[in-house]
Amino acid sequence: MTPEQFLSDFHEVAQIGATPNQGVDRQAATPEDRLTREWFRAFAERRGWEVRVDGIGNQFAIVDFHPDAAGDTPCVLLGSHLDSQPLGGRFDGAYGVIAGLHAAARLEDRVRSGDARPAVNLAVVNWFNEEGGRFAPSIMGSSVFAGLMDEAEMLAVRDLAGVSVREALEAIGYLGTDARPTVASYAEVHIEQGRILERESTQLGAVDYSWYTQKLDIEVLGEQSHTGATAMADRHDALVAASQVILKVHDVTARYEAEALVSSVGQLTLEPNSPIVVARRVHLVADLRAADQAIVADARATLLEQIDAIARERDVKINVRDFDVRDNQHYPESGIRLAEEVAAELGVSARRIRTMAGHDSVAMNRIAPTVMMFVPSVDGVSHCEREFTRDEDLVTGVAVLTEIGWRLLQGALEPSGVAGVGGAAAGAGAAR
Amino acid sequence: MTPEQFLSDFHEVAQIGATPNQGVDRQAATPEDRLTREWFRAFAERRGWEVRVDGIGNQFAIVDFHPDAAGDTPCVLLGSHLDSQPLGGRFDGAYGVIAGLHAAARLEDRVRSGDARPAVNLAVVNWFNEEGGRFAPSIMGSSVFAGLMDEAEMLAVRDLAGVSVREALEAIGYLGTDARPTVASYAEVHIEQGRILERESTQLGAVDYSWYTQKLDIEVLGEQSHTGATAMADRHDALVAASQVILKVHDVTARYEAEALVSSVGQLTLEPNSPIVVARRVHLVADLRAADQAIVADARATLLEQIDAIARERDVKINVRDFDVRDNQHYPESGIRLAEEVAAELGVSARRIRTMAGHDSVAMNRIAPTVMMFVPSVDGVSHCEREFTRDEDLVTGVAVLTEIGWRLLQGALEPSGVAGVGGAAAGAGAAR
Repeated sequence: MTPEQFLSDFHEVAQIGATPNQGVDRQAATPEDRLTREWFRAFAERRGWEVRVDGIGNQFAIVDFHPDAAGDTPCVLLGSHLDSQPLGGRFDGAYGVIAGLHAAARLEDRVRSGDARPAVNLAVVNWFNEEGGRFAPSIMGSSVFAGLMDEAEMLAVRDLAGVSVREALEAIGYLGTDARPTVASYAEVHIEQGRILERESTQLGAVDYSWYTQKLDIEVLGEQSHTGATAMADRHDALVAASQVILKVHDVTARYEAEALVSSVGQLTLEPNSPIVVARRVHLVADLRAADQAIVADARATLLEQIDAIARERDVKINVRDFDVRDNQHYPESGIRLAEEVAAELGVSARRIRTMAGHDSVAMNRIAPTVMMFVPSVDGVSHCEREFTRDEDLVTGVAVLTEIGWRLLQGALEPSGVAGVGGAAAGAGAAR
Repeated sequence: MTPEQFLSDFHEVAQIGATPNQGVDRQAATPEDRLTREWFRAFAERRGWEVRVDGIGNQFAIVDFHPDAAGDTPCVLLGSHLDSQPLGGRFDGAYGVIAGLHAAARLEDRVRSGDARPAVNLAVVNWFNEEGGRFAPSIMGSSVFAGLMDEAEMLAVRDLAGVSVREALEAIGYLGTDARPTVASYAEVHIEQGRILERESTQLGAVDYSWYTQKLDIEVLGEQSHTGATAMADRHDALVAASQVILKVHDVTARYEAEALVSSVGQLTLEPNSPIVVARRVHLVADLRAADQAIVADARATLLEQIDAIARERDVKINVRDFDVRDNQHYPESGIRLAEEVAAELGVSARRIRTMAGHDSVAMNRIAPTVMMFVPSVDGVSHCEREFTRDEDLVTGVAVLTEIGWRLLQGALEPSGVAGVGGAAAGAGAAR
């Protein structure tokens, strides 16, 4: 598989759910998501790979080097996610899956043209619902896979229209029952979604750790009344109080060094949402992220005090609940070094970089040695149609991922250091 | 029809679409709205009255005193609306329709037991979509009837789910084709939705004029981006800017005497509404009302300046459009005096009162002599489940409406002053 074939495939998939301004809209378990899954399946079947779908809609393509083995041979897993945000970009997630498929094809050719076979299998994954735009929380499929979220609980999650994950997956024919592969190690390549690599003209980021993140589920309860006939003094307007909360969530970042904390409210529902009725209830989700857990904790405490003051001032009730708390995750030093070594060998400039955004690799890193890499993003924008990465940067990432896949097949991150080709299957790292 | 029968009917209708806390949820053209319409139809048919439904879903029951007349005999029209806000109260609107039906029944008995018949007919109306919670603008059915809104344009209005008025009316079987009756005069009784009558222990309000009102349609356009990975300095967050706008709309009332201006934002939609995406677009509706048009104009000008400053500060685009502008409407002095006279004769305490809320009578007053009356509201709350009016106040209102209907049948508000029983049909007031 050549770089040209990769680019051709990448740009073909970008046509699925394409939006007018070069983005894509392929939220989890929608008809558009189904179409990308069919494309993934067709790619795998053309290569003769086995395709599996598990109970939370994760889709795997397995390159079996041990068809004669009894039981499940652990695999080196490459991948990311094909779902997108509403009016999202065409690179976020899709790049990592298509890169994984092409890397796997090259690796299979390399293995089958040689005489030694690796001790492990190779697989590519399209994780379900990384984005969390339709069904919260995000990083759902990989977190269920890693045992960090409960499958039954996630299948019961509903979108704003009341459709459950189970119903949505059934509707597109992707509520699977296949066995999950055992993972020896995991590698993912993704766009940076920031400006650091672009600013420094660096081709590759070896991700060393993820930011600490948490969300606040905030419910503001006022009293419904007539907008025209209710005296201002008699109102308990949930939307006025919620607007104050939104501004506090925004302004709290100013308490810390520039960009040490990012915060936002991205989701809000209003009841009854009638032009001439004072709102009785607003539900919103605030998102706090920092490299340093202490900053998030301090911002959270500040917000809780401010929210309490708003509730008293407006005579409304405000319920706040922590959820989706994600600790800093450190990727293994051996994997970071592996990425740096491979980049150096291929003549690719690289640096260590942290991720502010969550990724499937953050979940996978909990159960298997994981390598996470970034390629540059133009202007650092993502989750929008104008998200962009240049073809040459995409191609470089595929080359690095392929070589890392080769080292992983040779056991580069196995507990023993380097396992020989044809050696034993991965040990503790593969446990789930 | 006795007061007990009225109360029995009133409380029966309150069971249709009843909510857990004594309210009702019967938005326009929903299955619950259909059920109240069936109840209205059954009431009329039991009395042998003709039922008509026009092209915008207004429902009429006609008591024909001139079955032998060629052409359409003008009618004295009584009524209000049976639709409600989401989780609305059981009095707002429904009271006026059921009061109208019972008043008409008593008036028919009185006419048929005498030997003189009025020159005009009598009719009761259930106006379509007074509330405007599902389909904006409010006061839709009566405004189309009065020629103030275009029927085809209103049939094309869509709710937040994309369903048009035409589709919704067809779905409940109430997109009619019947001829509209010609109206000689109109009378409506409604709950106050304020505290003035209650505070002064007055049984009846003779409404003299309506407040000046207008809405602002506000669209905030930012840029969609990743909540986790976008630097705070690089964001163009539509929801942060919208929250500032909402607070300005609230705070602008403080520039004037207490309660001289009321304002609110009751409707808001957010795109893409994903917990981990910075909002690209917020659409909201602001509502401004004052007795004095100059105050609304001044507040609007202040807000436009403030909104412009917010757009510059946040580097977003904010489009503002005026809509649903409603001038002060003065009810005819002769009608106000008629209500005062009737109240005095029945031993009912009364006062003149303005309406801050819009009503179907505001539209009807544009094309026919109109009498509008209020009965007290406990705590002045409305558009909510705990809206409440005492049975004795409801009964008093029906008695007054009945007597006013009698005077109107005798031509009390006709251009000539008082038309004789059996005299000519109403003149200019009936024109449409």
